[in-house]
Amino acid sequence: MTTLGVFDSGFGGLTVLRALLAQLPGARFLYLGDTARLPYGAKSRATIARYAVESARFLESQGSQHLVIACNTATALALDDIRASVSIPVTGVIEPVVSMSEHSFPAADTLILATSATVDSHAYRDHCLRAGLQPAEKACPLLVPLIEEGWTDHPVTREVLCIYLQEALAQCSPRLVILGCTHYPLIAPLVRETLQSLGCNATVVDSAEVTAQSVAAQVKQNLAPVPSASPATFTCYATDSVEKFRRLGSHFLGQAIPQVELLDLGG
Amino acid sequence: MTTLGVFDSGFGGLTVLRALLAQLPGARFLYLGDTARLPYGAKSRATIARYAVESARFLESQGSQHLVIACNTATALALDDIRASVSIPVTGVIEPVVSMSEHSFPAADTLILATSATVDSHAYRDHCLRAGLQPAEKACPLLVPLIEEGWTDHPVTREVLCIYLQEALAQCSPRLVILGCTHYPLIAPLVRETLQSLGCNATVVDSAEVTAQSVAAQVKQNLAPVPSASPATFTCYATDSVEKFRRLGSHFLGQAIPQVELLDLGG
Repeated sequence: MTTLGVFDSGFGGLTVLRALLAQLPGARFLYLGDTARLPYGAKSRATIARYAVESARFLESQGSQHLVIACNTATALALDDIRASVSIPVTGVIEPVVSMSEHSFPAADTLILATSATVDSHAYRDHCLRAGLQPAEKACPLLVPLIEEGWTDHPVTREVLCIYLQEALAQCSPRLVILGCTHYPLIAPLVRETLQSLGCNATVVDSAEVTAQSVAAQVKQNLAPVPSASPATFTCYATDSVEKFRRLGSHFLGQAIPQVELLDLGG
Repeated sequence: MTTLGVFDSGFGGLTVLRALLAQLPGARFLYLGDTARLPYGAKSRATIARYAVESARFLESQGSQHLVIACNTATALALDDIRASVSIPVTGVIEPVVSMSEHSFPAADTLILATSATVDSHAYRDHCLRAGLQPAEKACPLLVPLIEEGWTDHPVTREVLCIYLQEALAQCSPRLVILGCTHYPLIAPLVRETLQSLGCNATVVDSAEVTAQSVAAQVKQNLAPVPSASPATFTCYATDSVEKFRRLGSHFLGQAIPQVELLDLGG
């Protein structure tokens, strides 16, 4: 059976797992949310790399044949360390999105919406520049708390999004808007509506969806054929607060999470 | 010289230090923000106790004669562990507020505004019940991110506060409203205005201010007289992201933080 590991600092990466479940019927997924040590955003590069490598090794030890880093901070700051520490292919959430953007919208003005930590790393900007895109970045620190409050279609979230997008559009006129945080797919419709209300017709790119497509293509090429008749299955591991993971995670996954295994990675 | 240690998981506790600086001129303060491991809210009791004890021991080793736990989560979940691990007096942020409320407003209907983690611990509720107060709790998870965004007098913060307070006032008619999070003193005026606009004339109790008054009284009683001519001094330690601590922390402290020492507590 084809087994894939999916790693995030919390449950945001479940939007990537959700897209993967749809793309790879028949596959088995192991999802690890390092909830005891989130958020990674405020931590140093060395600390994040150590945490991410521990999680990556655990997922490999459990039989993963391909690893998806469904965490923007870990992708931005620790992808090379992770690749050096395991012997299976590793896909992060940044390269697939930038690669797709480069091919579909060459040289496009591109606005990246992300957390402060991801923006401060400038990982999206640097990848976009190397791909010939014209990037601008906008940190949106309130969107994750609003989404975790469940206010994914709430007047307050619309107002906050409107403030952030107005500030961003005063600086750039994007053809593409990248949702550079695994939480943001839950408000993708709101982002599209708000952009239109501000007179911007940019295409909104969902990094979870694009990453899942890229991983599915690689897996179908490299691994044993996946029996497509049966649905994909998944097992979730969290390093703390299993109950919160189940409760909040189901919104991100779009289905109930019957069980979450508690995992001790130390620290 | 009288030296006091002040501990928080982040920089919210700087509102307590701010009140202490005003209450105890001539004293020397050591503030430790365990920023590498925040937020404590999502972590288990055992993990929080281990972190808090490590920080408490560090502050004692640096000469603190009195320890202030300026963190609601650590106070709620680890005060006994901290008291057992050091040989100096320890004051948390919950007992002083409840004690003052009990004496000034006996048996009052009391609404506690706090983070989800503090509400889930029910530490305020249990202390209030033992003191004969009539408590109700309201989790306000968006207030910390809004305050950290700097939106302390922003229409969105007013709107969110109005939603939370309307929900709370539908369940209770408080005579007292306790700000049960060290971030909240920054929006105390907004809380007062919003309560009034909703027809509630409750007294708003600032836990940072009340805790500082209690600590000052204990210190003046037990330790060497503090020379009151000179202003209090402080040294800040953080376990990660010193720059963010300096930048955000100055809003909480109400003055510039010239320097922050980086401290490695492991983990």
